[in-house]
Amino acid sequence: HGHRLINSLHPAEIASLIESLPPARREIVWEFVDPEYEGDVLIELNEEVRAELIGGMDAEELIAATEGMEVDDLADLIGDLPETLNERVLHSMDAQDRERLSAVLQFDQDSAGGLMNLDAVTVRADVTLEVVLRYLRMRGELPARTDQLFVVNRHDRYRGAVDITRLLTEDPEKTVGEVMDSGIEGIPPETPAGEVAKLFEDRDLVSAAVVTSDGRLLGRITIDDVVDVIREEADHSVMSMAGLGEDEDMFAGVLTSARRRAIWLSVNLATAFLAANVVGLFEATIEKVVALAVLMPIVASMGGIAGSQTLVLIIRGIALGQIEHTNARWLLIREISVGLLNGIGLASMVGLAAGIWFEKWTIGVIIFAALMINLSAAALAGVGVPLILKRLGVDPALAGGVVLTTVTDTVGFASLLGLGTLFLT
Amino acid sequence: HGHRLINSLHPAEIASLIESLPPARREIVWEFVDPEYEGDVLIELNEEVRAELIGGMDAEELIAATEGMEVDDLADLIGDLPETLNERVLHSMDAQDRERLSAVLQFDQDSAGGLMNLDAVTVRADVTLEVVLRYLRMRGELPARTDQLFVVNRHDRYRGAVDITRLLTEDPEKTVGEVMDSGIEGIPPETPAGEVAKLFEDRDLVSAAVVTSDGRLLGRITIDDVVDVIREEADHSVMSMAGLGEDEDMFAGVLTSARRRAIWLSVNLATAFLAANVVGLFEATIEKVVALAVLMPIVASMGGIAGSQTLVLIIRGIALGQIEHTNARWLLIREISVGLLNGIGLASMVGLAAGIWFEKWTIGVIIFAALMINLSAAALAGVGVPLILKRLGVDPALAGGVVLTTVTDTVGFASLLGLGTLFLT
Ligand SMILES: [Mg+2]
Ligand SMILES: [Mg+2]
Ligand SMILES: [Mg+2]
Ligand SMILES: [Mg+2]
Ligand SMILES: [Mg+2]
Ligand SMILES: [Mg+2]
Ligand SMILES: [Mg+2]
Ligand SMILES: [Mg+2]
Ligand SMILES: [Mg+2]
Ligand SMILES: [Mg+2]
Ligand SMILES: [Mg+2]
Ligand SMILES: [Mg+2]
Ligand SMILES: [Mg+2]
Repeated sequence: HGHRLINSLHPAEIASLIESLPPARREIVWEFVDPEYEGDVLIELNEEVRAELIGGMDAEELIAATEGMEVDDLADLIGDLPETLNERVLHSMDAQDRERLSAVLQFDQDSAGGLMNLDAVTVRADVTLEVVLRYLRMRGELPARTDQLFVVNRHDRYRGAVDITRLLTEDPEKTVGEVMDSGIEGIPPETPAGEVAKLFEDRDLVSAAVVTSDGRLLGRITIDDVVDVIREEADHSVMSMAGLGEDEDMFAGVLTSARRRAIWLSVNLATAFLAANVVGLFEATIEKVVALAVLMPIVASMGGIAGSQTLVLIIRGIALGQIEHTNARWLLIREISVGLLNGIGLASMVGLAAGIWFEKWTIGVIIFAALMINLSAAALAGVGVPLILKRLGVDPALAGGVVLTTVTDTVGFASLLGLGTLFLT
Repeated sequence: HGHRLINSLHPAEIASLIESLPPARREIVWEFVDPEYEGDVLIELNEEVRAELIGGMDAEELIAATEGMEVDDLADLIGDLPETLNERVLHSMDAQDRERLSAVLQFDQDSAGGLMNLDAVTVRADVTLEVVLRYLRMRGELPARTDQLFVVNRHDRYRGAVDITRLLTEDPEKTVGEVMDSGIEGIPPETPAGEVAKLFEDRDLVSAAVVTSDGRLLGRITIDDVVDVIREEADHSVMSMAGLGEDEDMFAGVLTSARRRAIWLSVNLATAFLAANVVGLFEATIEKVVALAVLMPIVASMGGIAGSQTLVLIIRGIALGQIEHTNARWLLIREISVGLLNGIGLASMVGLAAGIWFEKWTIGVIIFAALMINLSAAALAGVGVPLILKRLGVDPALAGGVVLTTVTDTVGFASLLGLGTLFLT
């Protein structure tokens, strides 16, 4: 019963079901999955859960699971296998399949070459559509998501593509050359997956040819795999903002999770000590004017929030390729203006409230000034930090938040307590 | 020169270029865009920039721009037009186009009905493939991304779909009924766009039929529009975590941006006052033990960071539909265990450091205890807050972070200063 229910789902749906279960119950569902679906389910699982299930399989099972898998998926799976299993699976394949696999494995998993399949159907420009139609009928079933045939010359050089619907609607006496689109450029195999995704998105593609710099057609990329890239990138940017990997397993063991998160917490702890140190410099001031300690959270939090807004905007702009040297300065001026404008409004409210609360107008003026300084610092850091991190080759989505709040915390505390020391003691 | 350069780009690329320019220079590029591309570019722009450019167009230009647009895109654009323009554009259309448009406009923009086009090609189950082939050749050019024809009965009820490649590879004497797939269910027009995206993703679809509950085929959805949905949802979740709209324009006017962000800052200001208030309750304690003020940022920041990690994990789990009543308790126990485990490690380090720093071991013990309490609170809030917000119908990605840090700030300050009051004064 469970068997039929589970195998009526698509592989991605089975994978999602397994991911939503605590480890002990994953094995039960996994047992029900038909051997012929196992490879496709493994590929759809996040890396941690996949490794967990592979750990429970022997070589025979794995070899059975890899049969019939698409070569791009197989390449991903092979990369995740432990050395010994890896070799046994490769050994079980025939020479031709092994060769096909190595054509994909030679490229980075997150590049056009790693995303491609070798199932492109090719035709010559000089044959008529009628010949193509006869050839296809003889050939039989076409690969899934075949929306175009690729045109190559006699030296297998890529020349363009012909939409499959044109075979159905154009005069069969026309040649491929007459109906093909020779303006569709192939994608170089080294192109990063993110750029491939951008191309598919901008040009509304279903498939695209992967072509080397010397014009050889290597394979084709299909939209279903590009959709997975887009989803993974989106996951990555959200998760990395919290210092998590995009493959973080909700149900991973407590020890595993704790160890992984401890790294992120430690980094943040170090920056928190930095901020505490700044506060420590002003112990004498706080002792005399306790109100300043009470106001500390307000200055820090406002700076952090305002800075994060700028930061997220800039990180997205960088990801979309919309930020360059020329407009960065423009953006900086804009963000500082926004910060100061909001500063004038909100900081005067806070200043007024603080002045009344502590019955001392100088306290009001000091927190007003500290907020104005910190909101400017927040805008500066919000624009500058991600640009600098990017230039250093560090992912701004990962490190941006930590660096930014370190800036806003220390600037906030230093200005509030520094001004307090100057004017209140 | 600029004209040729710009119109060699795809509409989405032109849109991205325009978005990356400051407002004054957008007009210059926009002037160069061919009238026939204008509609497609407008649709690819984010809502703010689109409204800005539309504001500079008169009715004639808009009517020209809408010609030849796909009906799903037209529906989106019409919805964004000011009332008067809206009517003039509708008026300019012929009766048939207006009817087609209203078929899409009756559904929510973010539902299957709002995403669909009315360009589905339909066939009957009882005709042979040969007849279909002849019909298509007579019909001429097929709509872009036509990967399947939809099979309807004589009452226009949806029956299934036939892959277009099967027309090319199957025996032409077979009937459509023999080669069709009758297991592909249509998507109800009310289905939210996010669920449509999940279906396309899980099942690797290129197109899908939109079918009413009584079996009428309304139209079809294509993957290119689904990719836009996925990208928009991803943008939305990242931007809303910082209280920004996903259509936030990097180059919007200073006043506009300041006004919008002021709302978010004000909400956060209110919560910061709450935290400050908690600190205010302990003024007498801080006056006696200034070290506590110095340690405040550490307790608050550790709770905030640990809580955000749990929060992001749970928000993603909710978005993937992987969190339910049954596993929520399991997750809560797991997250609290992770929090406590990391607590023991990091809190004892902090306790030791603080004890040495302030030359007083009780201070070390107190910050250790405060951190353990706050990390537990962080885990509890990280799991509980998004689940409660979701039940209240509030977007956890938007409000989760504010509520969470309010909890961790107040719990952190209250436990640190409360314990300090009990044991140090
Ligand atoms: Mg997955
Ligand atoms: Mg991966
Ligand atoms: Mg791959
Ligand atoms: Mg893949
Ligand atoms: Mg697109
Ligand atoms: Mg694939
Ligand atoms: Mg796939
Ligand atoms: Mg866009
Ligand atoms: Mg629409
Ligand atoms: Mg839209
Ligand atoms: Mg998929
Ligand atoms: Mg469309
Ligand atoms: Mg589109």
